[in-house]
Order: sequence, then C-alpha cells, then structure tokens
Amino acid sequence: MNPSQLFNSFLEEGQILTDKALEQRYHHIWHMDEPLKALCVLLPKNTEQVSKIMKVCYQNDLPVVTHGGLTNLVGSTETIGNEVVISTERLNRIEEIDKASRTITVQSGVILENIHNATEEEGLLFPLNFGARGSAQIGGIVSTNAGGLRVLKYGMTRQLVLGLEAVTVEGTVISSMKKIIKDNSAYDLKQLFIGSEGTLGIITKVILKLEELPKSRNAAFIGFDNYDAVVTFLKYCDSKLAGKLSGFELIWKNSYVQMTSVNESVRPPLPYDYNYYVLIESLGGNQFNDQNEFQNLLEQALEEELILDAVMANSQSDVEWFFRIREDVNNLVDFMEHDQHFDISLPIPYIGSYIEERYNSLRKIKGVNQVYAFGHVADGNIHFMVGKSNLSTELKKRIDHCIYDGLQKIGGSVSAEHGIGLHKKDYLHLCRNEEEINLMRLLKTTMDPKGLLNPRKIL
Amino acid sequence: MNPSQLFNSFLEEGQILTDKALEQRYHHIWHMDEPLKALCVLLPKNTEQVSKIMKVCYQNDLPVVTHGGLTNLVGSTETIGNEVVISTERLNRIEEIDKASRTITVQSGVILENIHNATEEEGLLFPLNFGARGSAQIGGIVSTNAGGLRVLKYGMTRQLVLGLEAVTVEGTVISSMKKIIKDNSAYDLKQLFIGSEGTLGIITKVILKLEELPKSRNAAFIGFDNYDAVVTFLKYCDSKLAGKLSGFELIWKNSYVQMTSVNESVRPPLPYDYNYYVLIESLGGNQFNDQNEFQNLLEQALEEELILDAVMANSQSDVEWFFRIREDVNNLVDFMEHDQHFDISLPIPYIGSYIEERYNSLRKIKGVNQVYAFGHVADGNIHFMVGKSNLSTELKKRIDHCIYDGLQKIGGSVSAEHGIGLHKKDYLHLCRNEEEINLMRLLKTTMDPKGLLNPRKIL
Repeated sequence: MNPSQLFNSFLEEGQILTDKALEQRYHHIWHMDEPLKALCVLLPKNTEQVSKIMKVCYQNDLPVVTHGGLTNLVGSTETIGNEVVISTERLNRIEEIDKASRTITVQSGVILENIHNATEEEGLLFPLNFGARGSAQIGGIVSTNAGGLRVLKYGMTRQLVLGLEAVTVEGTVISSMKKIIKDNSAYDLKQLFIGSEGTLGIITKVILKLEELPKSRNAAFIGFDNYDAVVTFLKYCDSKLAGKLSGFELIWKNSYVQMTSVNESVRPPLPYDYNYYVLIESLGGNQFNDQNEFQNLLEQALEEELILDAVMANSQSDVEWFFRIREDVNNLVDFMEHDQHFDISLPIPYIGSYIEERYNSLRKIKGVNQVYAFGHVADGNIHFMVGKSNLSTELKKRIDHCIYDGLQKIGGSVSAEHGIGLHKKDYLHLCRNEEEINLMRLLKTTMDPKGLLNPRKIL
Repeated sequence: MNPSQLFNSFLEEGQILTDKALEQRYHHIWHMDEPLKALCVLLPKNTEQVSKIMKVCYQNDLPVVTHGGLTNLVGSTETIGNEVVISTERLNRIEEIDKASRTITVQSGVILENIHNATEEEGLLFPLNFGARGSAQIGGIVSTNAGGLRVLKYGMTRQLVLGLEAVTVEGTVISSMKKIIKDNSAYDLKQLFIGSEGTLGIITKVILKLEELPKSRNAAFIGFDNYDAVVTFLKYCDSKLAGKLSGFELIWKNSYVQMTSVNESVRPPLPYDYNYYVLIESLGGNQFNDQNEFQNLLEQALEEELILDAVMANSQSDVEWFFRIREDVNNLVDFMEHDQHFDISLPIPYIGSYIEERYNSLRKIKGVNQVYAFGHVADGNIHFMVGKSNLSTELKKRIDHCIYDGLQKIGGSVSAEHGIGLHKKDYLHLCRNEEEINLMRLLKTTMDPKGLLNPRKIL
C-alpha cells in the first residue's frame, strides 16, 4: 500500500512522511538511532485533519499510534510497522490565554515549556512541571495524566484540565471546550481521555487551568533518622504552611550521598549523618513574610525535636541548587552499567518499611549493583533506580517482581505517574482486580471496537 | 408481584419495606407529605447485599433508583412506582480514619456531618461543605460530584475521592478502594461513577482524601461598584493569600439587602452603598499571623483603591455571622409566593454582564416578583433565586429560557453543582453538543444495556 494515496486529498505533501523521511523518525527520544517502523507518519495541523485521518484509518482498518514529545517511559509510543503514526507536532498553536478566567487554550502538540513561558509572561502559572518539560507535549501529558513535582499543591494533570477536545476512532470530534471549573451537566467525558494513553481517542485540544504566579519560593533540606518522623513532619508542615506547601520530596540516604557527590554544582547542603533527607518547598505571595514564616517553622521544629537538622535556601540560586540535586537523576544513572526505573505508589504509612524491605531484597539479587530510592512522599509516590550488570530478561523480571509483588497486599500501584503502556502490562493485575480489568476491556471495546487506537497498549 | 419473595432469601424482614412501611417513605426531603411510589424499598447493610439485589433486579428487569439523603435538587431520586428503591441509609459505617494517609473510608450511606465530626476529632478536615450537610449522604454526594463553599481551595468532590467501590447493573462489584493519590494504572474507573447520578452503577463505599484541620479562619465583607473590580480583586487575593484563600462569594446588591434585613442575626456588616458585595474567607495555619496578613491585605487594597469598603470579622462569631448571611437562603425564599432556583456556571469574565442582562429580562416577565443572584464567583458558579406569582408551566419555562438560553454562546453550563436529573434534561443540549450526548448514550447503553439504573434521569 502507498499510504499517501489515502491521505493526499486533504493533507499536503509535507504532512505525509514515508520511506526516507520515515526512517529519520523514531519512537522515543531515547531511541533516536532506531528508525521508526510504521506505514507513514502524518502531521495534521488542525482537528479537522485529525478527524479525516481517523475516518480513513477506520474505513481501512489501519491501526493508529499518536506521537507527541516521545518522552513516555512505558513504551506507549512504540510501533511494530503496520501502524499509521499521527504526530501532533504541528498542532502547536497556543490559541488563547484568558487572564480573567485564568485559562490557556492550546492544541495538543504544544510543548510544556512553551506553556510555562507564555503563561508566566501574563503573570500566571501552569503548575505542572517535570524533567522532560522541554520536549513533552500537552497532548501526551494529558493522555498519561502526568504528575511531577508539585502535585501536593496543585494536583495531577487531571485536576488541571477544564476543557478537552478529542477525536474518536471513527473520526467524530468530541468537543468539550469549556473554561468553567464546575460543570455537572451529565457525564464528564474528558475523564475518559485523560490518562488512557491514546487508546480511547486522540486529544487535539485542551483548556488548562492556570494559577496566579507565586511571588515567593522557599526551600530547605532536612535530616531525619526514622521514617515515622518524616510523616509527622509532613503533617506539621502542611498544617503550618496551609496551602503553601508545594513539595515534600524524600531521598533515602544512599541516594542523597550519590546525588550530592558527583560535582560541585550538587554539593551536599546537609552532612551525610542522617537516614532520610527531605527537600521541602513552599510557594506563596510575599517573599519576605514567607521566608520568615518558613524559617520560624524550621526553628520551631528543631526546638520541638521533630527534625534532626535543617538547612534553608538563602537565595533563589540556593533553591535551584537544592532542586538540581533532586531533579538530576542522571547523577544516579550515569554510573550504572545498565539501569531499570520504577514509579510506584503506596499508602504513606507503608513507605518506610516497604522501601527498606525492597532495598534488602534487591541487594541480594545477583546482578544488581545499585539501588536508589527517592520520591514524592506526600503523594505516596516513590521512584526506584536500579543499576544492574546485564540486560537479561530473567534479571529484569526478578527485579520487577521484587519491587511490584508486595504492592497488591498494601493497596499500592505499579504505576503512580508513568502509565502502563507496554512495559507494565504484565503487572497490571497486581494493582487492578479482574472486575476492574473486565470493565476496562468493555470500555475499550465500546470506544474502539476494531482495536485500532494504540494497539497492544495498557490491556 | 410480591417483591419480598425475590429478596427475602438474603435480606431480613426489616430490610424490605412494602405496603404501609413504604407509604411512610418519600422521594425527597421537601416532599415528605407525598408517599413514595415504588415496588419496595430495600435497606442493604453491605456491598454483598447490594450486589445480590442488583443480580435479582437484572434477572427480573426491575428498574432501580438509589436513595441517599434525598437532598438532590434536580429530581434525581424521583420514582414513578415500578422501581425497586435501594436506600443506602444502613450502609452507614465509618470503616477507618487513617491519620498518616489522611484518608477516611466510609460506606456510602454515611451522612456528611458525621464525616466532619469524626475527622475533626482526629485533627483532620473533610473540606466539602454545604447547607444540606446534616442529611446528605456521601454516596449521593459522590454520585452528583457536589461542590459547595470551598471548591476554590479544595476542589469539587471528584478531587476528594481516592478510592471507590460500586456495584454494576449486573451485580458485579467494581472495587477500586485505594488510598493513594497517584495511580496511573490504566483507566481511572471511579471517574465513571462520580457525577453520573446513579445511572451507571451504585456506589457502596469510598475512600476520601482529608486535609489538615485549619488553625485559622478569617473573613471579610467588601464593597464594589463594578464587576471588573471584583475580578481584579479575586486575582489580587489569590496571589497574596497564596493557597489560603478558601472562599470568594459574590452577592448582588439587592440580594445583599434582602439577606441582611430579615432579622438581627443577619444584620448588614457593610452599608447598602455598593453594587456588589464580596465575602472572602481564608483558612490557614496560625490565627494571629493570618489575621494580620488578612488585615494588611485589606488595608493595602483600600489604599490602592482596588476596593471601596471592607469590614473584617474580628472574632469567630463574626465569621459565623458573615457566613450566616450568605448561607441562609431561606431569608430570600421565605418571602416569595413561589420560587424557582438556578445553579449555572459561566466563564468569570462574563458573569457581570450576563447576570445584569438576566436581571433586566427576568424583571420584564409578568409573574416574576423577585430576582436574587449570588454565588461562588471564583468558580464561575452563580445561583439565582426567582420569586414568582404562580406555578404555571408556561411561566416556569419562560424563566428557564431566560436564564439558560444565553449560556451556550459563552460556554456556560446549565448545571454547575446540582446535576441534570429530571429537571434539567430539557436544557442539557444547551451546554453539551450532539456528539457529546451521543457518546454519553453509548456509555449508558454499555454500562446499563437494559436501562434499569435510575431510569429517565440525565439522558
């Protein structure tokens, strides 16, 4: 088949990539050297073109995989060769920033960092933020219900989407483009498309909720020797700082040592004397007042012996230094022969003991060289980086099972932020029961009866 | 048919109400004098019994209407006589409060006020709050995605539900009872049941997210002469108070005059000199500091001429006085011959002009005696109370159309908080397009192929 014949009545030549042009594409930014396997890549510019593409694909039984910024971590954008790839890169228009409604309306291919820059110019904040901000597109972000560093204060992506437009497998445009916060007029259809990884429809446009740009930012590193004290301090901070607490990141000692010993730009703010290190952040309305409040909180917590040690950022460059330590995971991964990442969720009270047990078990596995844990403890979300000596499937599975197997019993999840995609399918049953999975299949069959949307993913 | 024969193998005698016992029931707390029309009322005590009831109803093609606290405002609990009514009143167990996870696990029949009392004893807050808190049950609250007074700071019900258990029309228990904030393991099934008014399944249990109990509460009434100044001040407050701003309620002058002239307990905090009155509230971590901050904010706003006048609550009894004015809508309704209520949502920039136009048009309708507007302006949610001289359908429809017809053009909603139920069905097409409604029908047919769950409601 020459796919261009199917689409060239409504797409221009440069919007249909095949052959050589196709080979220069890839399925993930970490696999740029592997040419993309696909029938063609289509570059629609507007919703109408996406709709027409889907009508053709539906009529011709062509599987479709949507490509955004290709930063997904669970293989959600992988292809095997028989698919039409729809890239959202030309759906890159910021349509409107409404300062009074505090909303931004964007096509799904707009890059997160461009949303940040555009809103900040208007004194507004789109609070979602994570490492891949320079590549990740909002369509993919919404499709995976991304989390990141400030979920504690502002919520996951799901909480930040007011309006949404998506195209169904048959090419119908479902447009729910509202700017309103409250809308209980029947079923909230956008919830179907948020977090379903392109398996129920293709997101073409969203209206996002913005916040006032914070006028203050404060941060501190704090040392603890036991996990229960960490939880007590989380509640203490949340109570004292009311709605200002925006980050509460926990780093296990060995991760902290590694994260702060690579070079001078990540030198340790606190000595290596503690078992747990917490990075807290507050965002508020007045730098002078908030800094005083933050400092008083730390002094009082020291006095009350809630914490063992604390160092506060004295300047914005200190704040950046502190966050560089937490954010630059390359400082962990660069020294590994091979690496395997995890993104699990579990109830806060279990985190201390669960992670300790995993550390102990992982270290007994032959081939495991390093284990680093850290995470958004206030959200119950812990990331693991495991360094290993080889890429064998057997070793990979042993490590997977070691981390995942205990989650079912304590009501955890094998995916807090990253989704299921291809790579976590085998473990989905550990956190979703048979009845849930059956209902998911029913939804999938209903919305995509031919199974054309992002095939093989999730279920 | 004698329905007791269908259910008495697994329900005790007192759990099946028919005949005389049935006649003492009603479909809404405002219609206690109208005996309930139904085949029977069933009072299950646990999820298993709900599941068994649904299996029997499904096999016998019996329609089912779920009754919670019967405070719904759109006819969602009405019956015509051929239905089995499942009342959740005996599903009234608070199963657990987990202080470290900051969650409460409850059966769906627990009354909101009981959740408030139980969590406050543990130093925690379930932030959802509204007038019917003494009757409304959490199952109904989740089924209608209730809003209320503190959505600005804490979100709608949807944002407060972490885990959910529901029974499908066939009796299958979909149990997603997780305490975790982040869970991107495939489709988020609870979103289907939240806000779908019992038409897709019956909620039997939920896990709710709790917050630290605020240590400070401050409030003020503020006067404005034009709507744009209100919006500017909203942004100003939200920026200065960062995450502490918890309420921003707008009251139109004539509503304010009426609300504050009924008796001494609701005497006016500000004179009747302004066009708009705003009641703001902040919740924080330290009463002394927060009160100072709040007072400084008001003084600075007066100095910068952002506001015309302000009076701050000097004590918690002042705060209660201020909120009594806003909350006691009986002070508006009691003086009406007949009344008609509205709960619309619209983008914030349009509110001023839209409401003014509605005031003008409504006052021209013969039979309309009073028009009062007020609402959660920060959420774009305005309530109307319209007083009228008769109960004719013609007058009702004229008033409905006057308020609803302009919403489509500006991207509003005919239901911000209350849902669609029976009473707003005719206007759903004004805020949801054909494609959306078709997709809703598809979901309904998929989840409830025989149309047994809360028939005639929503669609």
